[in-house]
Amino acid sequence: MTTQDTGLLVTFEGIDGSGKSTQARRLAERLQAKGHEVVLTREPGGSEGAEEIRALLLTGDTNRWSAETEILLFTAARRDHLEKTIRPALAAGKTVICDRFADSTRVYQGATRGDLRGTVDSLHQIMIGQEPDLTFIIDMDPKVALERGLARNSGEDRFEDFGLGFQETLRHGFLSIAHQNPERCIVVDGNRPLEQVGAEVLAIYEERA
Amino acid sequence: MTTQDTGLLVTFEGIDGSGKSTQARRLAERLQAKGHEVVLTREPGGSEGAEEIRALLLTGDTNRWSAETEILLFTAARRDHLEKTIRPALAAGKTVICDRFADSTRVYQGATRGDLRGTVDSLHQIMIGQEPDLTFIIDMDPKVALERGLARNSGEDRFEDFGLGFQETLRHGFLSIAHQNPERCIVVDGNRPLEQVGAEVLAIYEERA
Ligand SMILES: Nc1ncnc2c1ncn2[C@@H]1O[C@H](COP(=O)(O)OP(=O)(O)OP(=O)(O)O)[C@@H](O)[C@H]1O
Ligand SMILES: Nc1ncnc2c1ncn2[C@@H]1O[C@H](COP(=O)(O)OP(=O)(O)OP(=O)(O)O)[C@@H](O)[C@H]1O
Ligand SMILES: [Mg+2]
Ligand SMILES: [Mg+2]
Repeated sequence: MTTQDTGLLVTFEGIDGSGKSTQARRLAERLQAKGHEVVLTREPGGSEGAEEIRALLLTGDTNRWSAETEILLFTAARRDHLEKTIRPALAAGKTVICDRFADSTRVYQGATRGDLRGTVDSLHQIMIGQEPDLTFIIDMDPKVALERGLARNSGEDRFEDFGLGFQETLRHGFLSIAHQNPERCIVVDGNRPLEQVGAEVLAIYEERA
Repeated sequence: MTTQDTGLLVTFEGIDGSGKSTQARRLAERLQAKGHEVVLTREPGGSEGAEEIRALLLTGDTNRWSAETEILLFTAARRDHLEKTIRPALAAGKTVICDRFADSTRVYQGATRGDLRGTVDSLHQIMIGQEPDLTFIIDMDPKVALERGLARNSGEDRFEDFGLGFQETLRHGFLSIAHQNPERCIVVDGNRPLEQVGAEVLAIYEERA
């Protein structure tokens, strides 16, 4: 699946509260326990500069930035994350596990401003290029996910404030990404207990790596 | 030169210390004294969000961002500035005078990373689009400009630390932009006393407006 000596980029995607962070951490721990070198990271953020851009994106008024400016800031953060964290780790043969990546931008922007999907894709092509080797799309009932998400109180919930209908739209967005990219995307049923989800994730990873 | 009821966008460009801020302020004051409604603004910055992006761009280590991430951040700041400050003012029939704009990105990136000029142009086309109605390119001897610039101590001099050779490259970059865009660019000799430069700027503005 990849050339020798280069690590794999594995991403977790899905609606808010679907268990991405939980499963990303769990997979990282399991692989580390087996002696793999793993870098666990997240978006937006994952490098010093990108975390500062994250703060601009996720704090303040919901209408602080237009959708267009938001896409530019997400892309700037992703570029920095790629240069400073992801590519050096992959080049050193490490497995990079990333909690959200470009699919989140595609799906969230697609859900809020469908007319900007072409813009998202152009910016990705010009400035990012990188696709994951393997993407876990954790699919689940938005009702349950929304409850889990709201229970957390992260203080960064700009994207969780739009309600159930919005989460349904996101869900279909992620499923459509999976459908369009079957070579890298695996849909995992996130309605089950986290140990079950984790066991499936690990089995798929080992099959692919 | 413009449709009725829509203001003019006037930009000042040129190498570091060439007198852009001085002349932008002076033109704004002269027009205001004549009863025009004027918005004096600057880049990077010029809106609340863009000023926060400016702080990310101009403070910290010189190598904090790659050229690619820098272009994305400049474009994000410009998009916000355009939406929140420039376009509303133009729509209200005001004259917008902007201290640096897209030409600065073209010239600085061209001078430091010539291979990225295509990237700069693509991002401008996709995300910005707007060109000034009138651009004053203040042309002058980099030696004198560098002395003026260094005398200021703004604390934001990432771009002034590259020395004379770099300023010569920038100068040629700005002259080349003027050459390629004769319909909107006027080259003004900035080696003269500021009153003389200012009188020429005002005369050209009045001829064009
Ligand atoms: N399979 C599961 N069953 C029950 N609870 C779960 C399961 N997976 C995660 N949780 C819990 O649900 C909440 C949300 O999980 P998590 O933070 O991993 O989701 P997320 O997809 O990262 O959310 P966000 O999109 O908001 O970052 C947490 O409290 C977590 O402990
Ligand atoms: N024509 C002039 N003759 C002499 N001094 C001038 C002239 N124009 C500006 N100055 C002085 O030169 C210095 C730099 O001018 P100014 O700040 O306007 O340049 P700038 O192009 O905006 O610089 P920067 O690119 O660093 O923002 C200031 O101290 C200003 O007062
Ligand atoms: Mg999470
Ligand atoms: Mg200035």
